[in-house]
Amino acid sequence: MALNSRRTGRNLRLVVAYDGTAYHGFQTQRPGLPTVQAMLERAVEAVSGHRSRITGAGRTDAGVHARGQVVNFFTPCAIPVARWAAALGSVLPRDIVVVRADEVSADFHARFDALAKIYRYFIYQSEVRSPFWDRYALRSRVPLDTAAMAEAAALLRGKHCFRAFHDAGSPPRDTRRTLFDLSLHQFDAEDVWSFMCPGPRAGLRGLPFLVITLVADGFLYHMARVLVGTLLEVGRGALSPQSVAERLADGRRDLAGPTAPPRGLWLDAVLYADDPRTWFYLDTVRVVQ
Amino acid sequence: MALNSRRTGRNLRLVVAYDGTAYHGFQTQRPGLPTVQAMLERAVEAVSGHRSRITGAGRTDAGVHARGQVVNFFTPCAIPVARWAAALGSVLPRDIVVVRADEVSADFHARFDALAKIYRYFIYQSEVRSPFWDRYALRSRVPLDTAAMAEAAALLRGKHCFRAFHDAGSPPRDTRRTLFDLSLHQFDAEDVWSFMCPGPRAGLRGLPFLVITLVADGFLYHMARVLVGTLLEVGRGALSPQSVAERLADGRRDLAGPTAPPRGLWLDAVLYADDPRTWFYLDTVRVVQ
Repeated sequence: MALNSRRTGRNLRLVVAYDGTAYHGFQTQRPGLPTVQAMLERAVEAVSGHRSRITGAGRTDAGVHARGQVVNFFTPCAIPVARWAAALGSVLPRDIVVVRADEVSADFHARFDALAKIYRYFIYQSEVRSPFWDRYALRSRVPLDTAAMAEAAALLRGKHCFRAFHDAGSPPRDTRRTLFDLSLHQFDAEDVWSFMCPGPRAGLRGLPFLVITLVADGFLYHMARVLVGTLLEVGRGALSPQSVAERLADGRRDLAGPTAPPRGLWLDAVLYADDPRTWFYLDTVRVVQ
Repeated sequence: MALNSRRTGRNLRLVVAYDGTAYHGFQTQRPGLPTVQAMLERAVEAVSGHRSRITGAGRTDAGVHARGQVVNFFTPCAIPVARWAAALGSVLPRDIVVVRADEVSADFHARFDALAKIYRYFIYQSEVRSPFWDRYALRSRVPLDTAAMAEAAALLRGKHCFRAFHDAGSPPRDTRRTLFDLSLHQFDAEDVWSFMCPGPRAGLRGLPFLVITLVADGFLYHMARVLVGTLLEVGRGALSPQSVAERLADGRRDLAGPTAPPRGLWLDAVLYADDPRTWFYLDTVRVVQ
C-alpha cells in the first residue's frame, strides 16, 4: 500500500510533544532507525487503517525535545477530529504525546507555512550532575556571566548572515535569517530543584535554572545549538560579547563557539499566520529593530 | 575472581542518585538484567580493578528513582576517597550519579544500619500527559481532594500492622512498622510546568504538583506504593478517609487501594544514626504520637 502523501482525504494538523532522547531525530532518513516521524506514521496507520506520510514543521536532531512540534497528514479516515488525540495516545509510546488535533484546509503544509519557530535551551548550574534533569538540560559546572551573555545575545538579534553559526550539512543558498528574539531568562524553582538535582547548590552565582529563548523565521542546520554554544563560551569568559559581531561580519565558523549538546534544546512552538504571536514577531519586532 | 563481599580493605559509603526507568530495580536478582547494583559493581571494578559486592540500603523496584540511595562496599583499592565520586562518574551511564563518597568504619552496613527511609511520591494534575514529567510522576486527570487525602494520611501515621498495605512477596514475620510521616505537599512551579507539561491547566482545582512524603523505620514489599494508591483512591472519592483505619484493623489488602505505578516514587534519603533527621523522627515523632 502506497503512502498517502497526496492531498486526498482530510488534512489533519497535530501539535506533538516528545522526549527526543530515544529517537534518531524527528525525520526518518534511513528506514529502521526509530524516529518520531516513524512512530507517528505507525500510530496513524494503527488508528486509521491507512498509511499516511507525516510532514513535520521542524526536523529536530536526535536528542532534541519538543513541546510544540506541528505536523500534518492527509487521511481518508472518518474518525471525528476530536477523537484523534486520544486515539493516537492509546497506541503511541509514553514519550510521544499528541497535545491537540485540528482539521485544516487542504493547502496547509506544516513546514512551508511556518512563519517562525520558537526554541528554548535549558541550562542548570550545579556542582553535581542530575540523572533526572540531564535528559532535558545542559549542566554548567561553572557559574555563567549572564550579563555578558545578554550583551552578546543583543548583538545577534536581527537580520544577519548566520553562516558562522551553523554546521555545514547540505549548504543552503541563502544563509540570512531573521532572529526575532535571543534572550535569557533565569529562575529559581526550589521545589523542583530539590527533587531533580541531588547535589549542593553552594558556589553558584545567580539562579540555578537558565533558559535561552531563540525565535527566528528559520534556522540553519544546528544554528540554534551553535548560537547557544557560543553564548555559553561568552558566559564562561572564553569569548567576548563583541566577538559575535565579528563572526556575523566575517562568517568564520571556526571562531564561533561549539555546537551545544542536543539534550538541552526544545522546539517550543511553530508559528503560523493564525497565531497572534507570529505577528508580534513579524511586525512589531521587525519594525523596532 | 571472587566478589569481595568480606570485610577486607576499606569500607566505602556512597550516596547515589538514579533515574530508575531503564533498570530492573536496584538489586540484581537474575544475572543479565540491567540493575543499578550491577552498573555500580561494573563501575567499581572498572575504577579499582577489583570486583566488590555492592550492598544497597533500599531495594527499589523497577522504574523507581532515587535521589539519596545509600550503598557500601569493601575495596582494597587505594584511590583517595575524595576522588571516588568523579572516578565512578566517568564510567557510569548518565542516569546514575554518585553524589558523594565517604570512608566509613568496617562495621557499617548500608541496609542493616538504616534507621529510617524517606520516600516521596510525585503526582501532577493535568488534562494532557507530559512526555517529560511522566517518567518521574504519576498524572491524575481528575482534581484530587487533598483534604480527604490528608485526613486519611493522619490516620495511617504511627505504629501499625501494615498488612493491608503491602503486596505478598516473601511473607514477612512481623508486619508492624512505624510510619513517622505520611503527609501531602502541594506546590506550583510555573516555570517548570510551562516546559514540562504541554497541555492546558484549565479545570484544575488546587496546584498542579502534589508530593506525598513517606517516612518509616521500614517498608514492607510495595508498602509505599500501596499507601499512595490508597490515598489516591481517597483523593478520587472512591474510598473514604475512615476506611484506612478499618484496613489497619482488619488487614484486608483487597479492600485497600491498588499499587501505585513505580515511576512516581523516589527514594529520597536513608537515615542513619549520624543524621540529625533520624533523631527528629525516632525521638520527637514517636514521643508525640
